[in-house]
This record gives sequence, C-alpha cells and structure tokens, in this order.
Amino acid sequence: MLSDDQVAHIHDSAVNYLADEGIRVLLGEAREIYASAGCRVVDDMVFVDPDLIGAAITSAPSDFEVVSRNPDKTIRLAPGHLNLAPVGGPPFVSDLDRGRRDGTLADQENFLRMTEHFDVMAIAMPCVEPSDIAINVRHLHSTRSTMTLTEKPAFLFARGRARVADTFELVKIAHGVDEAEFASAPRCWTNINTNSPRQLDVPMSMGIIDFARAGQACVMTPFTLAGAMAPVTLAGALVLQHMEVLAAVTLSQLVRPGAPVVYGAFTSNVDMKSGSPAFGTPESFKGALASGQLARHVGLPWRSSGSSASTSVDAQGAYETMLNTWAAVLAGCNWIMHAAGWQEGGLVASYEKFVADIDMCQIIAESLRPIMVDDAELALDAITEVGPGGHFFGVDHTLERYATAFYEPLLFSRATYEQWDEEGRLSTEQRANAVWKQVLADYQPPPIDDAVVAEMNDFVERRSAEGGAAPD
Amino acid sequence: MLSDDQVAHIHDSAVNYLADEGIRVLLGEAREIYASAGCRVVDDMVFVDPDLIGAAITSAPSDFEVVSRNPDKTIRLAPGHLNLAPVGGPPFVSDLDRGRRDGTLADQENFLRMTEHFDVMAIAMPCVEPSDIAINVRHLHSTRSTMTLTEKPAFLFARGRARVADTFELVKIAHGVDEAEFASAPRCWTNINTNSPRQLDVPMSMGIIDFARAGQACVMTPFTLAGAMAPVTLAGALVLQHMEVLAAVTLSQLVRPGAPVVYGAFTSNVDMKSGSPAFGTPESFKGALASGQLARHVGLPWRSSGSSASTSVDAQGAYETMLNTWAAVLAGCNWIMHAAGWQEGGLVASYEKFVADIDMCQIIAESLRPIMVDDAELALDAITEVGPGGHFFGVDHTLERYATAFYEPLLFSRATYEQWDEEGRLSTEQRANAVWKQVLADYQPPPIDDAVVAEMNDFVERRSAEGGAAPD
Repeated sequence: MLSDDQVAHIHDSAVNYLADEGIRVLLGEAREIYASAGCRVVDDMVFVDPDLIGAAITSAPSDFEVVSRNPDKTIRLAPGHLNLAPVGGPPFVSDLDRGRRDGTLADQENFLRMTEHFDVMAIAMPCVEPSDIAINVRHLHSTRSTMTLTEKPAFLFARGRARVADTFELVKIAHGVDEAEFASAPRCWTNINTNSPRQLDVPMSMGIIDFARAGQACVMTPFTLAGAMAPVTLAGALVLQHMEVLAAVTLSQLVRPGAPVVYGAFTSNVDMKSGSPAFGTPESFKGALASGQLARHVGLPWRSSGSSASTSVDAQGAYETMLNTWAAVLAGCNWIMHAAGWQEGGLVASYEKFVADIDMCQIIAESLRPIMVDDAELALDAITEVGPGGHFFGVDHTLERYATAFYEPLLFSRATYEQWDEEGRLSTEQRANAVWKQVLADYQPPPIDDAVVAEMNDFVERRSAEGGAAPD
Repeated sequence: MLSDDQVAHIHDSAVNYLADEGIRVLLGEAREIYASAGCRVVDDMVFVDPDLIGAAITSAPSDFEVVSRNPDKTIRLAPGHLNLAPVGGPPFVSDLDRGRRDGTLADQENFLRMTEHFDVMAIAMPCVEPSDIAINVRHLHSTRSTMTLTEKPAFLFARGRARVADTFELVKIAHGVDEAEFASAPRCWTNINTNSPRQLDVPMSMGIIDFARAGQACVMTPFTLAGAMAPVTLAGALVLQHMEVLAAVTLSQLVRPGAPVVYGAFTSNVDMKSGSPAFGTPESFKGALASGQLARHVGLPWRSSGSSASTSVDAQGAYETMLNTWAAVLAGCNWIMHAAGWQEGGLVASYEKFVADIDMCQIIAESLRPIMVDDAELALDAITEVGPGGHFFGVDHTLERYATAFYEPLLFSRATYEQWDEEGRLSTEQRANAVWKQVLADYQPPPIDDAVVAEMNDFVERRSAEGGAAPD
C-alpha cells in the first residue's frame, strides 16, 4: 500500500511532531515518568524526545508469548503468527429470540463458552459488558468467569488501579503463580485507547503503567476515525495514529524496558453525512494495510479489527466484516480483535453474527493452507480411471478422501432452493441461532482444580465485602 | 499459493497427459483440425502434440482489447488490468416483489440497463435467460437488446453455428463495421465450458472454431468441480482444468494463430454430503490463486468468478461472493465474471444481490487506489489547529475535502439502531430493492443512430421470418 519512503516519511513526521508539538497526558505520574527520562513537559503537554522513542521501539519485543494455564493454548505474537479474537466490549447484546438488550454476566459467560468452543478463536474477550453486575464488583465477576470458562489468554479492561490489581490477583490464582512468576511473562492484556487526537487520559495512562510494571501486555490503539478524531485524509489519520502509538509505547518502555506491547490500528472513517463511524470501508482497508507496514517499521506485533457498522446479521455486515478481516490477513496482522460477533460499530455483541463470522474465520484459516502437489494429489490415475465425460463420485481416489477433503461449513448451506423452501426458508441468521444454542448445550468447561476455584471465590467474596473498586 | 516448481509440474503433467491419454472431441471438424496439424486421433480421442501446445500458448496474445462502439468503453485484457462483469446465464430471476421465477427478456434488459449504469461493471452479460422468447429467435432478441441498451463489450453465447453467425451480424451492424474490420479485433466474446472431465462437445467445439475464425474472443472454462467432474484433490482438479484449457486453446490457435483467448478458471468443489456445487469455499479461494499462476505460466489473460451457493441475499451470499472476488483480485485476475447478482450456484440472477454486490465491487475498486502522502494529506497543520482532545469536523482541512473524502456506499447504511428502527428496520436486501428501481427509473440508453437500430430491426425481422435458428 505504501512505498518504503512513504512509511519512513510518516514515521519521521510522527516522531518530529511529538518532539515539537507534543501530546497531552492527563496523569501527573505519567508526565513525571516522561520528564524524569528527559522529556520537556509544559503544563499537561509532553514533548517526547526522539531518542527515547528510538530506545522504546528497540526495547519493546517484536516476538512474545501470552501464556495460558494450558500450554497448548499459549499464543505467540510474532511475525507470521495470526491470532483471532471475538468481539469485545459492547454494552448491548442481541439474539433472534430476545432481541437487542443490555448485556448481562450470563451473556458474557455464553460468549466465553463459545470462544472456548471454537479453535479458530485464540483469545478470550469480555465480549459484552455485564451491566447487571454492580460497577464496583463487575471486574471481579467478569474476570472470575473468564478464568474458569476458558483457558484462552484473557483480555482485561484497564479501568483504574484498584480494579487492575484485583484482576491481576485473580489471574495469578487461576494460573497458580506468585508475583515474580506473574511478572516474568504476560498472562493477560489490555487495550489502551488513546483519546485521539493527541491525548492520553488518566485511566489509560494508569493502565499503561500498571500493565508494564506487572509485565503484562498492552495494545496501544488510537481511536483515529478520519474526519472526526483524526484528519479527513488517510495519511493524516495514519500519522496521528502512529504518533499516539509511539508516545504510549515510550511510556510503557520507560516504566519497564521490554514490557510487551502491541501496535493497535483502528483507523477507519466516519460517514460524513451522519458523523457515524463507518467500518469495512475502502479507507479502513487501506488503513489496515498501511498500519501493518508502520508496525513492521517499528518492529512491533500489531492488532487490527474485523468490524461492521451494520445493525443486523445481513449482507452488509458480512461484506464489512470480511473486508476488514481480509485487510488484516493481507497486512500480516498478528491479532484480529472483533473478528466474530461485532455489530453496530461496536455497540452490540450478536450471538448470530458470532457464529456467522466463525464460519468466515474458519474459511479464511482453511484458505491459507498450502496446496499439496504430488502424484497422489495430482490424481492422473483417477482421471484415467474415470475417463472422458465421466464423474469422480465413485472412484477409490474420491472414496478414500471425501470425508475430509473439503472444509465443511458450520452454517453456510448448499441446499437446493426446493430443499431450502421445504425446510422453512431459513436465513443465515436463523441457522446461526440453532448453531449457538447447540454449542452452548454441548459446552464442557476446561478442567480447573476445585481448590483454585475456591480461592478465586474467596477473593471475590472478600473484595466484594470490602466494597470492590470503583473506576478511577 | 504454488511454488514455481509446483506450477511447472502441473503444467508439464497436463501437457504430457494430453499427449499420452488425450481428450475426447465430439465434433469431427475439430478432430480433423487437430489431425491435420499432426495430432494422433483415434476414434473420438485426440492426443494433443506438446509442440502444438507450445506453439499455441506462444501465438495466443497475452494482451488484447475488446472493442466497444464507444472507444471509452473498450476494455483491455492484459496483466494489471481487471474487468468486472455481472452474473451471466441463470434460467431464473429473483426480486423481492415478484419472488423467484423464470427469466424474461424484460428482465435481461433490466440487467443490461443496470450494467450500463454502474461504471464498475466493464462487460455486458446475458444476465438471465429470456425464456419467454422462442428458442429459435431468442439469440436475435437478446443480442439486439444487448447492442442497444449498453455500449459495454458484449458476451454472447456459442449455441450453434447459425446462431453465432446471426449474433455476429448484429454486432457488425451495431458497430458499423464490415467483415474485414470485424475480424481485425474482437468486439464480443463467448465462454467455452469444456465438458469436464476431458471432453469437448459439439456446440463448444463449433464455438471455438467460429469465434477464432472471426477473430472474436473465447474464454476457455473447464467445469472442474472437485469431487464430481474433477478429482477430489485440488491439485488434481487444477491439472484437469489446465489440460482442458490447453486443448481448447490449441484448437483455437490451429484455426487462427493469434486468435484472442482467455484462460478460464472455475475450479471449486461440491458439497460431499449433497453433491451440490459449493462456492466461496477455501478450495475455490486456493484454486483461484493457483489458476492465476497457471494462466501467467502460459502467458494468457485469465478469468475467474464471484460466485455464491446461497439461496438468498443474506450474510452467506455476501461472505461467499466476497471471498471469491477477493481471491480473484489477489490472484491478478483480468476478468471476474458473475461479480454481481449471482445466486444459488448460478441458477438465479437476483436484482437485489446485483446491487449489494455492486456496492462490494465499488468498495474493492476504491480499496485498490493508492494512498497519497504529502504535506496536504499528512495534515500536521490541521492536527495542530485542532489541538489535543479536539475534533476535526469544523477545520478547513476537513471542510475542503469532506464531500469527496470517502467512498459513499450505494446501500450500506451507517444509521444508528434508533434511526434504522424508526425507518422500518430495512435489511440490506430491502434497501437494494429501492436502489435498483431508482437506477432503472433514471436509466438513459447510450446514443445510437436510428438507422443502425432500423438495420438491426430489419435483420431480426428477416431472420425471424426465415425461422430463426435452432441450437446445433
């Protein structure tokens, strides 16, 4: 998408701009960290020293693992490694039976079960906000559910110090590790949304500091929607994204050189008629390709998204999610967030969209496998056996392979029109409804020691009795 | 997808197989052409001489134009050139108001109007079979409509000698060219579906011969559905596809060295449970990437498809069509057929799917434009003007560009849930229904001389009075 010169020019422009014009940092402790390292700080503006940026992108690892309590589910963020994650964070949830409504802990737990079920999902997300749980104890319940219902490395929100400390405790209990072992490798991560343009607020600054100190992973994701929080031009949105990532990565590396960080790219555009965010657009496609180049330029693993603005599980939602997902795959992305279930620009986690997207993700994963070319696969003997105008259904070459020869879709149908009509003209969405119910019915939780669960329960009970923790 | 060695191995295997095992050719005249050039012929089997294949892929052009009567709409088939075409050939048509039904000439004409309307479509197709027109005169009516309702280079069926001769006459009249000028450059084309495996039937053989003699273009497209008409293994389906293309191209080049031909790739798989064709599968994705490599290996422009097996304009249809379309784009395809409106594995041309796919095609086209990186696009002054935490809606940099900054979707909506709910919860399909009606209401036919139309009408009338022409 970009030439090497263009990549270097965007990078150099971002670095020089941060030195000359700076970024606003709302947390005093964070400004002091920059200042102690030699950055000029004026009021709440931090002018980031280019040498510190250079040192930060050198010390930040380009290759690291996020450890699961089951070694088979540990994942790697490194060139050539792609990890998919479902939707994270919407306030609303939707399914065909109950419609669109506030998310609950029961919904979050259902999405965790579905995430655990499908191998193509590598990362556990807080798929929907459990708004039926009081805010002061929500992080406790959400984290406990995450640690028990799935073994996949967990994403946790950075919504203030005390809550981060609580969630770290629960991860330590679940993994059976002490403070030192916890700090030796990331076992969870968070997303840092800079408040574009050029601002890092209090909880996000705290999140960077706390996760870096604890050796846990941070994804630095500027919220650069071109035309609103970023320039209307793609190069402008990208240079803003890049400078915000660099400023955040520098803070993390000043706290702890070598702290694991990920380059987050979310650049898309708004609809200029309505001001609404748009996803699956040509601009988001090109932005993803360019972001992959910028992330590689600074030697960081990077994260993109499979997003959609559609209000329903329809053709638009499918086109948009697939466009963004393909952009990320083509751009050598290491972590695609929101790859399944995201709807309405992130306001809704949809059960049916989750299943439809899983089929798409599985198809993409299968599409990336190599083609074998040898005598058995070329099948010239079978071609001779069948002869001109014949068919291959009955030959041994087919019979030996047919059961596993092709990807079998989860819900995409090849029924004839007549079959489809007889079976009630079910839409993709209706078929998806049946699939997620079956997945939940079949779900088996991963093994975990009763003693570990008891310790988590004790912790949640004690901290709840103490009043939990409010957001900072 | 394939290594250079794998590509060469598939090519060499196909060439050697054709020499040793041959292909069945049902038309005596075609067998005689092969035999006169030195091929061994036994009964209806032709054993194709490898030297003739080598000469054929050398004489076939790798770069040619298909001429429109409006020079601005002439298209080029050459490396780096991508041309999109809508659905071609289904017997049924579907729209939300009238449901699924037999296609009519009025439907075919509507699709021709929509094709003319959207710039992203470069080629005119017989989008749906006009089954209300008697078979003996159908080609006359269909071709006349094509030549008057659109200027885009026209696809015409090869369904027997007399009908091909009739359609050539109508193209000559529309273009105002004589026999010699007609033969000097292609102004129309056809698709040759070999009867996989390893068979070329009578009308297809005639089509190759007649189009080559007239200097018109042929797309050679084996119908290699893995597991049914081709081996269940992808390498096997590809080697079969390749040998059938090579045999057909050789026939064309023996008729007229330099005749314009296109490498057609349709390799997908069947659903092994039902035997139904499947599209938008991992196998079709990989098959397209490999086919592009095989076509480049023999120096031919190549054609792929944007197909779907879905019975409705739903998420499945969108995922499938986009997967195939992306595969073709990534594989350097020169002509994507069925890129808009194809449904039910080719049984249905859908008005609403046509519009939804057009939005997707336009988004893909926009996604392939380069990113500009200069001072104006980097917008650092605007970033300074807006300041930390501000927004870009009101700055001059945005106001000067907002109207054209982003791709504006044809029907993809960014309405909020509340707006969408108020406006009647319209699906993508329902919005598409409104769009195609508006397009047809606004349609203006391209200019054409009354005298030319009168001459076409006279020709159609005369040939109809003579009884038209039945298929061979």
